[in-house]
Amino acid sequence: MKDMSSQEIVEGVVCPVPLRHDEKVVMGHGSGGRMTHDLMARAFYPLLGNPDLLRGDDAAVLSMPPSGSLAVCTDSHIVSPLFFPGGDIGRLAVCGTVNDLAMVGARPAALTAGFILEEGLALEVLERVLRSMQVAAEEAGVRVVAGDTKVVEKGKGDGLFINTAGVGWMPEGREVGGAMARPGDAVILSGPIGEHGIAVLAARGELALESSVRSDTAPLNRLVEAMFESCPEIHTLRDPTRGGLATTLNEIARQSGVAIHIEEAAIPIRPSVEAACEMLGFDPLYIANEGKLVAIVPEREAEDVLAAMKATRYGEEACRIGEVREAPAGRVLMRTGIGGTRVVDLLAGEMLPRIC
Amino acid sequence: MKDMSSQEIVEGVVCPVPLRHDEKVVMGHGSGGRMTHDLMARAFYPLLGNPDLLRGDDAAVLSMPPSGSLAVCTDSHIVSPLFFPGGDIGRLAVCGTVNDLAMVGARPAALTAGFILEEGLALEVLERVLRSMQVAAEEAGVRVVAGDTKVVEKGKGDGLFINTAGVGWMPEGREVGGAMARPGDAVILSGPIGEHGIAVLAARGELALESSVRSDTAPLNRLVEAMFESCPEIHTLRDPTRGGLATTLNEIARQSGVAIHIEEAAIPIRPSVEAACEMLGFDPLYIANEGKLVAIVPEREAEDVLAAMKATRYGEEACRIGEVREAPAGRVLMRTGIGGTRVVDLLAGEMLPRIC
Repeated sequence: MKDMSSQEIVEGVVCPVPLRHDEKVVMGHGSGGRMTHDLMARAFYPLLGNPDLLRGDDAAVLSMPPSGSLAVCTDSHIVSPLFFPGGDIGRLAVCGTVNDLAMVGARPAALTAGFILEEGLALEVLERVLRSMQVAAEEAGVRVVAGDTKVVEKGKGDGLFINTAGVGWMPEGREVGGAMARPGDAVILSGPIGEHGIAVLAARGELALESSVRSDTAPLNRLVEAMFESCPEIHTLRDPTRGGLATTLNEIARQSGVAIHIEEAAIPIRPSVEAACEMLGFDPLYIANEGKLVAIVPEREAEDVLAAMKATRYGEEACRIGEVREAPAGRVLMRTGIGGTRVVDLLAGEMLPRIC
Repeated sequence: MKDMSSQEIVEGVVCPVPLRHDEKVVMGHGSGGRMTHDLMARAFYPLLGNPDLLRGDDAAVLSMPPSGSLAVCTDSHIVSPLFFPGGDIGRLAVCGTVNDLAMVGARPAALTAGFILEEGLALEVLERVLRSMQVAAEEAGVRVVAGDTKVVEKGKGDGLFINTAGVGWMPEGREVGGAMARPGDAVILSGPIGEHGIAVLAARGELALESSVRSDTAPLNRLVEAMFESCPEIHTLRDPTRGGLATTLNEIARQSGVAIHIEEAAIPIRPSVEAACEMLGFDPLYIANEGKLVAIVPEREAEDVLAAMKATRYGEEACRIGEVREAPAGRVLMRTGIGGTRVVDLLAGEMLPRIC
């Protein structure tokens, strides 16, 4: 991170004065010069600092495990509002990327963080977000090893956008992917759906929606490790974020060239989420989640995987929601509560913008 | 890249109709659903597609070399305007991250790309930027292996922001860093300074500045490899981007706890850049470059490194600009054209906002 020179702290050249309540982001914070260094020393280092980040070079250098492969992913976060019940843009930025790595079977090793700040943002807000990133990173067991900060003029951004890219180590022998689902496999969901999207929507206060729903934003890497311990042969993992469960299942059905049959009655939804969806006319199958996963596993392993999931914090409410079949290839079908069957399609258009 | 499912193309489920001239980004392009898939199939895949990107999973999986270490970096790009003489935000996004990897001695292996699009952006603009990324990636010999696309409402962004994170393989034995400069070392600059900042400024058309200056935006990884071939013992490499040559030298002086003495007369500046700086009252030492590097090498290797640099496309005008001394530690001093010596400090405040 070129922005951040550890020597600045060590030598006290820039004294890390604590942030004041009335300080705001100004264009100079993005200059790459003294003001950028000052912001780093006062806001970023105290919260996210670690030896790799503090090394102060253009890139961080990590030692590699002797075998396996490297997983790489990226996610930009533009959620509005920045804070919502159960999370905020910082927790989301860490968990979203940790989860993308976990979904290919990789163990998250390090994150990078790129901040685009809008001129006028209160530094207090930035500090709260960084603190939240720190807590989430600690929970997931990852570090932010490289970063970047840019500033845009007032009216050319929206407070704060965060890109987090991630690298993870993939142990040898794990082969997981959207194209690996096979007819006969069981479809497992790690818990109730729709909480994140509804929590963000309620936090906007636009829809006169009084809601007790909290976002499920959480790092799923430990859940995934527990699953692999019980079943090294997991076929597919995916977190149903934008587009919701319906879109995720459709992606898998298409990538694998299989049909996915699910049972409406088996899909867990909390009453508060169901009530909000009914009131607003939303289908919870399309609402984003940020702490849930879909797993497709060989039928003979399904019970063991479920038991392993239920023993972890973010898998307590895991359940089986359906199975993979041959036909109709590329489609998701749902047996509804009243006994009919309907096609569940990809999300068309936009339902809830800027929920992640 | 969850956004992008290769099967969509393979199966023709979404037919990749070419972009029309009047098409614009709408909120639905960020939904994660059908419209996102459609944008991927029509704009991103045809230009950036490769097997890793097209795999369509949450993260790309790369095989690792048997030894060495992993370099990781990130950079967000918010340059305004998006296009300028000599480059654009796409070329900048690829080169900036390739160069950050090269500056720690790593061979760029793969990039991730995170796009934040503003509602209303012409898809034609996005296509031009993607094409430029493709050309730059090919020149540098890297691939974009994972991506993400988000959309913000009109007035909450500024056309297009791109984050590129990079991973690179660092061959065993290379130990390069801002803290490695030693008294007696030679300070080398790869070519004339100030072109990028002035080119972007002129492209804004705000300053009635008629200028023939072109940005130097370029991938420096091949130059760096040539340098390591001639001298495996390079101490420091850094590209003087935001904050310019002056800020970069100050960072190195502080990280290494040394003094850097430079000769004003030895620093190459093209007459067109000099003229623009004089007219605008800017000091070229603080103007951003995007295709230059500073190298600090043992004195006995300096001539060989220079010769190796001059034999490459982006090092033809390389020259020696000074030397590292013990005192005054943490400072940069310049012998001026008229024979005096002045302290060259870090950039204070903001000179040219949003030049990268």
